[in-house]
Amino acid sequence: MASKILVIGGTGHIGQLIVEASVKARHSTLALVREATLSDPVKGKIVQKFKDLGVKILHGELNDHESLVKAVKQADVVISTVGSMQILDQTKIVSAIKEAGNVKRFLPSEFGMDVDRSNAVEPAKSPFARKLQTRRAVEAEGIPYTYIVTNYLSGYYLPTLVQFEFGLTSPPRDKVQIFGDGNAKAVFNKEEDIAAYTIKTVDDPRTLNKTLYINPPNNTLSMNELVTLWEKKIGKSLEKTYLSEEQIFKSIQESPDPINVLMSINHAVFVKGDQTNFTIEPSFGFEASQLYPDVKYTSVDEYLSYFV
Amino acid sequence: MASKILVIGGTGHIGQLIVEASVKARHSTLALVREATLSDPVKGKIVQKFKDLGVKILHGELNDHESLVKAVKQADVVISTVGSMQILDQTKIVSAIKEAGNVKRFLPSEFGMDVDRSNAVEPAKSPFARKLQTRRAVEAEGIPYTYIVTNYLSGYYLPTLVQFEFGLTSPPRDKVQIFGDGNAKAVFNKEEDIAAYTIKTVDDPRTLNKTLYINPPNNTLSMNELVTLWEKKIGKSLEKTYLSEEQIFKSIQESPDPINVLMSINHAVFVKGDQTNFTIEPSFGFEASQLYPDVKYTSVDEYLSYFV
Repeated sequence: MASKILVIGGTGHIGQLIVEASVKARHSTLALVREATLSDPVKGKIVQKFKDLGVKILHGELNDHESLVKAVKQADVVISTVGSMQILDQTKIVSAIKEAGNVKRFLPSEFGMDVDRSNAVEPAKSPFARKLQTRRAVEAEGIPYTYIVTNYLSGYYLPTLVQFEFGLTSPPRDKVQIFGDGNAKAVFNKEEDIAAYTIKTVDDPRTLNKTLYINPPNNTLSMNELVTLWEKKIGKSLEKTYLSEEQIFKSIQESPDPINVLMSINHAVFVKGDQTNFTIEPSFGFEASQLYPDVKYTSVDEYLSYFV
Repeated sequence: MASKILVIGGTGHIGQLIVEASVKARHSTLALVREATLSDPVKGKIVQKFKDLGVKILHGELNDHESLVKAVKQADVVISTVGSMQILDQTKIVSAIKEAGNVKRFLPSEFGMDVDRSNAVEPAKSPFARKLQTRRAVEAEGIPYTYIVTNYLSGYYLPTLVQFEFGLTSPPRDKVQIFGDGNAKAVFNKEEDIAAYTIKTVDDPRTLNKTLYINPPNNTLSMNELVTLWEKKIGKSLEKTYLSEEQIFKSIQESPDPINVLMSINHAVFVKGDQTNFTIEPSFGFEASQLYPDVKYTSVDEYLSYFV
């Protein structure tokens, strides 16, 4: 029988997709929601959508230990998708899981780069350290876990070709800025695929106490390769500007929060190659498209075709 | 004699300007910096710049209570400019100030809207609640405070005319998207002016246990007024699209973090009018340009002229 999945942070951007993927995979699905969320004009509707999908809504919050223990006791698997501001609050989930004693797998909120293998500078370094701190707390308590490393989200980075113009609904057709020399390989994954892989892994003994890297070969490409792919699609060459590490550092220093954080993550990815500069060893992790070849993921090539 | 000012979070975007404004106003200035920061390629240089300015660098961090108490004891005024992720960690500063017992004024990290008078929906509501929680902790401990409400930062919002295209270095010249009907008044302040007003207020008995609102009349204007001002400057009319509240909610739901947070802040500002929909009463606060008419602030009109 498929395990019961509790999602904490389900009304968030990734959380919604995880809840939907859990339902789709016929897991009995629970979502922990604060009572105040019901009256929020945006989040309230998401909760209603969950109910319509048959998700069991549990009321509670991270600061209410009893509510947390009660929720955790009803699930076999706990997936946290809390936002960047609440990463450290996850120690409260860890305490609840410890007390409840019944959880077979905990997935803390990651959905980014492997923070244990990162050369990020500030201001990305500190938020990464908070994820690390959560990992160490999970391990110290002996809670069974899987860390989901998704690298870049396609919906975030591909519509703009990693340019700092979030309003863009289609990649640039005239010029493009490239971080570093453009040769470091990055990984881009569609959010729905990330949700599907995440749900796939919760009952898989191979990923127990390991990291699941969502690094499908067709989604692993350098900025230069990404731009060339786009140029081929639109039949036009783009004017390229290369940002040196020194220029990137200057830009990090001069940009307001949260742009400076995104800049320093780009530095780690495109200058340091953090998403792909190590080999995934069975001692610490597995690659998702190898473990779950039945998941039909959307390649970067297909994704970019949306915009032609 | 000018009071001694300790800045915690000084290497951040606003923090740097506060440190510089403090030095410029001839305050003896101290900055609390983590030892690890010195080797950071970006932040390390900022620390060096501080040293060159005569700032006393103290090593320590929020999680090291002793280091915090020791730093706080050397100052009359403590200004926190910690980033959005560390808002709640400020309770550690509150504890240190309480123990040290010598601080005449504490300015927690605000530099945004008045979170005590906000109608923000999620996902902005929760980060606002964290600032509120900090305010209540400060008040509960009886620590003398001033809250600095800056509303929107010009460097963040004016180069794009509040469009979601952070890469823009100049406001749009063809079309513009307007939140709501465009009539709610917002406030835009240049970061250097914010720093100057902040330093002005630390020794001012009028703002003891009050909020300082940086709402200069020339910087208070609606989105429609802002666009008209820009149109006059470039001698060209822009194509306008008005986003209804329903459309904004949809967009909040569909946007990834942190875009959804910025969207919901825009909703509070431009639909709910949160930056200007109340009268500043002497019982709780004062307006900065009225209290300090000698500060020559940069008006929105002047700021937009940079881009013509």
